[in-house]
Formats: sequence, structure tokens, C-alpha cells
Amino acid sequence: MDFVKATLERIKPVNTELLHQAQAKLDNKTKPLGALGRLEEFGRRVAAISGTLSPDTGKKVIFTFAGDHGVTDEGVSACPKEVTPQMVLNMLAGGAGINVLARHAGIEVRVVDVGVDYDFNGAEGLIPRKVARGTRNLAKGPAMTRDETLAALKVGIDLADQCKAEGVALTGTGDMGIGNTTPSSAIIAAFSGISARELTHRGTGINDIALENKIRVIEQGLAFNRPDPKNPLDVLAKVGGLEIAAIAGLVLGCAANAIPVVIDGFISTAGALIASELHPNVRDYVFAAHASVEIGHRFMLERIGAAPILDLNLRLGEGTGAALAMSLIEAGVKILNEMATFEQAGVSKE
Amino acid sequence: MDFVKATLERIKPVNTELLHQAQAKLDNKTKPLGALGRLEEFGRRVAAISGTLSPDTGKKVIFTFAGDHGVTDEGVSACPKEVTPQMVLNMLAGGAGINVLARHAGIEVRVVDVGVDYDFNGAEGLIPRKVARGTRNLAKGPAMTRDETLAALKVGIDLADQCKAEGVALTGTGDMGIGNTTPSSAIIAAFSGISARELTHRGTGINDIALENKIRVIEQGLAFNRPDPKNPLDVLAKVGGLEIAAIAGLVLGCAANAIPVVIDGFISTAGALIASELHPNVRDYVFAAHASVEIGHRFMLERIGAAPILDLNLRLGEGTGAALAMSLIEAGVKILNEMATFEQAGVSKE
Repeated sequence: MDFVKATLERIKPVNTELLHQAQAKLDNKTKPLGALGRLEEFGRRVAAISGTLSPDTGKKVIFTFAGDHGVTDEGVSACPKEVTPQMVLNMLAGGAGINVLARHAGIEVRVVDVGVDYDFNGAEGLIPRKVARGTRNLAKGPAMTRDETLAALKVGIDLADQCKAEGVALTGTGDMGIGNTTPSSAIIAAFSGISARELTHRGTGINDIALENKIRVIEQGLAFNRPDPKNPLDVLAKVGGLEIAAIAGLVLGCAANAIPVVIDGFISTAGALIASELHPNVRDYVFAAHASVEIGHRFMLERIGAAPILDLNLRLGEGTGAALAMSLIEAGVKILNEMATFEQAGVSKE
Repeated sequence: MDFVKATLERIKPVNTELLHQAQAKLDNKTKPLGALGRLEEFGRRVAAISGTLSPDTGKKVIFTFAGDHGVTDEGVSACPKEVTPQMVLNMLAGGAGINVLARHAGIEVRVVDVGVDYDFNGAEGLIPRKVARGTRNLAKGPAMTRDETLAALKVGIDLADQCKAEGVALTGTGDMGIGNTTPSSAIIAAFSGISARELTHRGTGINDIALENKIRVIEQGLAFNRPDPKNPLDVLAKVGGLEIAAIAGLVLGCAANAIPVVIDGFISTAGALIASELHPNVRDYVFAAHASVEIGHRFMLERIGAAPILDLNLRLGEGTGAALAMSLIEAGVKILNEMATFEQAGVSKE
């Protein structure tokens, strides 16, 4: 627990003076004031987070955290749970959606096994940080022990610390875990008090009967576990997941190390919500990649205070939305760095 | 006029069989059905337009058309009209917003002088296609003669034909022309019957008095010229602009040559609207880059039948929104081309 406290103590609000200086720099570029809209916001915020008016964007990494979920025993997902390790291997081979989109945007993908119920036998390229072979069934008891929760959180924090040491300029989060919309929905319900029925969505394509079942499972999990919304780690342990905990840790660690972090869709936002509930200044470091089609996503983003960058009806996870949004954030930074000023270009400023 | 007719006759609807085949190819990729949302739409549509299930995206070009507007005599813009040639030179030097964003996305920018009131003396990198040194003041008469309108339209059509010859896979449109939100608003008003007051926006930042003036100028231009909404070339000539005509020509030419074309914001959409009114199948080839903050933009996109890809509060023009959207469209094509199938990856398909 000491490392969590130590990490939280390292999280500072961003330098608002730098925000203003970056905007002043943008206002002197050859364009009407504010004409590049949210690209200017991205440039300004990355400058303030990074502590420089000319931020580097050379090294960009997405961490895709994989974990299994005991709650799949309840039939909450249309996919069999073998798909989690199969997709991890697909990612390592470069064939998954996240690989295609990260290559397109010049981003490295690092796949982290934080809790897959499969022995990867040292598969090449995988970052092995297995805390457990999946969570327990949250419908029948806590998904994780306190120790497991802290260990998974530490996986993310450690990787963020490593990013700082490597000079990673921009990070993104991603997830792979069959069944993980159920714990994510349970987390939102725990913090918001909104009913499982209102929040629950068909995930990757379950039918009406399965949807009713998923609602029942979440309600049962919340009734049985009684997660305390004032205690984010209690919520995370009781109804969360190992990859969600690692995402929360990465977000905390990025905030502590002053690295901008782009959160992907529904599952990643659940992780970021835990981080944001642990420390209010986390939001200064977070960018929300896209508006998920999942109900409840909007609630989380509002609570974190993040406006989604894209709205392309994505619901794949893996970090796919983050990859696309990171390229737009980089575009905003390049506007700050590369665009000519009125003076340089000899353009009349009205 | 014969070349317009000949171009219109070359525009065919896209092959719907290929649309279905492309979606079938996407449905066999390692992801839930439809989980990549609009990226799948982009991949599918580019496949159908290009006539192949594995479209190339290597060569991408944005054409930024520059022209001046006689209506600036009425004080409709906050910027002096010298800014048009100054910004053209800034683009040729690589310092404008469009240069930064196109470089980021691996897109070539071609700047075309179709009507700037300035002698560029063979400036390096400029494509010289000057039809006139700006339009006439549309508040006092037709902005262009019929011959000027057709000549500017032909500039765009010819450049699209050249793209076909060069093997350009994806094109984008852009504009540079101080005062050009006024003709664009007048074009929308002419087709829609919506009043100038409802449509008119502050453009790049004019005040209340200037806004009232702009509304008056548009109303006066429409009352004086009486453009015929059943005759798109009449609307274009009377209240349009040289760069708007060239954009309309590029869009027509891309449709005729089966090249996907991404239209930027407000001004480009006015050009695309002219093209779409000239031939209904144009819409099959058009992608709308973003939702402009300009009122009236939504009307045009609905009429063209295009849903904006981005919503980032951009209002710079130049092709900046197109550059960002083209990268997202390319991402969708790469999903179609590069992502592994269930069989290739050994992933269970439920």
C-alpha cells in the first residue's frame, strides 16, 4: 500500500502558467485565433503536462493489458474465454486491430499479461506480469484479493515509471479480456448509484436473454460484495479486474511522472475512473480517446472531466481508439512546434 | 460546357456488390462484427470506389485552391485581402497549418492559384491556373462570368484527371481565400431558401456590426443576382468563387475517375454541394472531413448525404480537417488490408 500512497503524493496539478504560454505561442501562428479548435487544446495541454513549450512526440507507446474474468462462468459474454489468450497471441503476431492502427500512427504496442488464464511459456514480445490466472466470479464474492489488486495496480505504475526512464512522450491504454464489460459496468454502478439495468449494454453482441442475465449478474455482484464508493480500491478489488487495475495503475503512474495518457474506450475508462477517484489531479494528465457506444461511458468521462476526441462507433477495445486519438494529439503538438508565426511567414495579423 | 457534360457522363454509382464483399472481408477479421464502427465504413467504401478489395493508400494529395473575392470591398472579413497571397506563400514555404497536418499524415499538398489578385511570378511549387484576379463583388452583380466559372471548374476536373494518371489513391480539398465564407453562405441560402441571417456566422472572428453587414451583403447579393437553385452553375457563377468552382470541379473529376475525395470544412462543402447538385452519384465518392462550427454546414452535409468524420471545432480551412480525416480513412483501409482473419490467427469465432 505504501507504493500507492507514494505514487499519489507524486501527482501534482499541471502548470497553468505553461498552459497560458502555450496558448500565447499558438495565438501567434498563421491562423485566426482558436481556428484549430481542439488541436490547440491538445498542443497546449501536452505542453503543460510535459513542462515545455516544444514537446517531443517521438516515442509513443500503447499498453494493452490482458486478463481473464471468473464472471464468464455466468455466461456474460458471447465469446468463449479462450479468446483472451488467442487474441494476445494475435497481438504478438501483429495481426490484431490494435497492431494495424498503432503501426499506422507510429506507436509501439506492448502487450502485458496481467491475469490471463493461460500459460504463455515465455511467448516472444509478451510482457509477463501475471498476478493471477484470472479473477474470481464477482457474482459470488470479491473478484480479487486486496493483495492481487495492489499487485496489478503496481504493474501499471511500474510500467509508467519505466516510460519516464525511456523518455516515452505519450502513452495510451488498451485492454483484452473476455467478459470485461461486466466488471466495468459494475464499477460505474458502484460509483454512480445508477442501476445495472440502465448501464448495461450488449457488449460485443449478446442477445436479449444474455443481456438480462448480465444485468442479473451485475446486480448480484453489487448486492453480494457491497463495494464502498468512497474507497476506490475496495470497488476495484470487489467488482473490478486485473487488467482494469493495471490500467488504473498506468494512469496513476503517468500522472505521477507527468506523461500524457490517452485512455481508450469503456474498459480503459473504468480503470481511469478508479485512478481519478484516487486522486483528483489525475484528470490533468488524461485524454479520452473516443465516445464508446457503451452506455455508462459518458457518465465516467463526465466524472473524470474528459471530453472524447473521436466518435466513430468503435467498440473493440485493445487500445484501438487510443491509437487514432494519439495521432490527433500528436498533430496538435506539431501545430505548436512546426507552424509558422505571422512574423516568420510575413502574414498580416489583421 | 461540353467538358462538363462529358465529365458528368463518366460518373457512375459505386459497385454495391464490392461494398458487400468488402464488408464480408471485414466480418472475417479478428473482432466482433462491426466493432470498428466507421473505420469499417471507410474501408468498405474506399474498396467499392477503387474497385478492389485491397485498395492502395500510398499516394495521397490535398489540393488547396486559392482565390480572391471582390465582396471583400464590402468589409465582410476581419482579415485584409493581402492575406490570401501571403498565406499562399506561407503554404509554399511549408509553414501553414495544412503543411504541418499533411506532413503528419503523409499527404502531399498542392497549392493551386485559381484566382488570387496577386502576381506570384512563377513561385516555386505553386500550380498556376489563374482564371481571373479574384471575383467581382457579388453584392453588386454576378461574382463570375459563365466562362470564368467553367474555366475554374475545369481546373479542378483536369487536376482530378491527372490524379488518375498518377495513381493518386485518395484526394482531399482545401481552400484559401479571404472573404470566402460569404459566397459559401450565399450558395447555401440559394439552394436551401434558408435566410442569410439564420445561416451566417462570424467566420474567422468578426464583431456584431460586421456580422450584420455580412448578412446585408449576402441578402443584397441574392436579391440582386437571383441565382436559380435548379441550375447549380448559375448559383456558382452568380454568388460563388473561383476556388469554390475549382473545388466543385475536383469533386466532379474525382467522382468521374473513381477516386475517393475528402472534403474539408465549410468552403469545400459549398464546392462539393455544387458538384452533388450537378450529379447525384457524386455523393458515393465523397467523405466529409469534419463538422464545421459554421452554421449552414450541417445543412449542406445532409443534402450531400455525408456524415462528418471529426468534430474538433476546426474553422481554419486550407484542407486541415481533410488531412486529419484522410488519415482515419487510410486507417480503415489498412484494417481491411492488414488485419488477420480468425483462421489466420487461430481465434475462435464464437
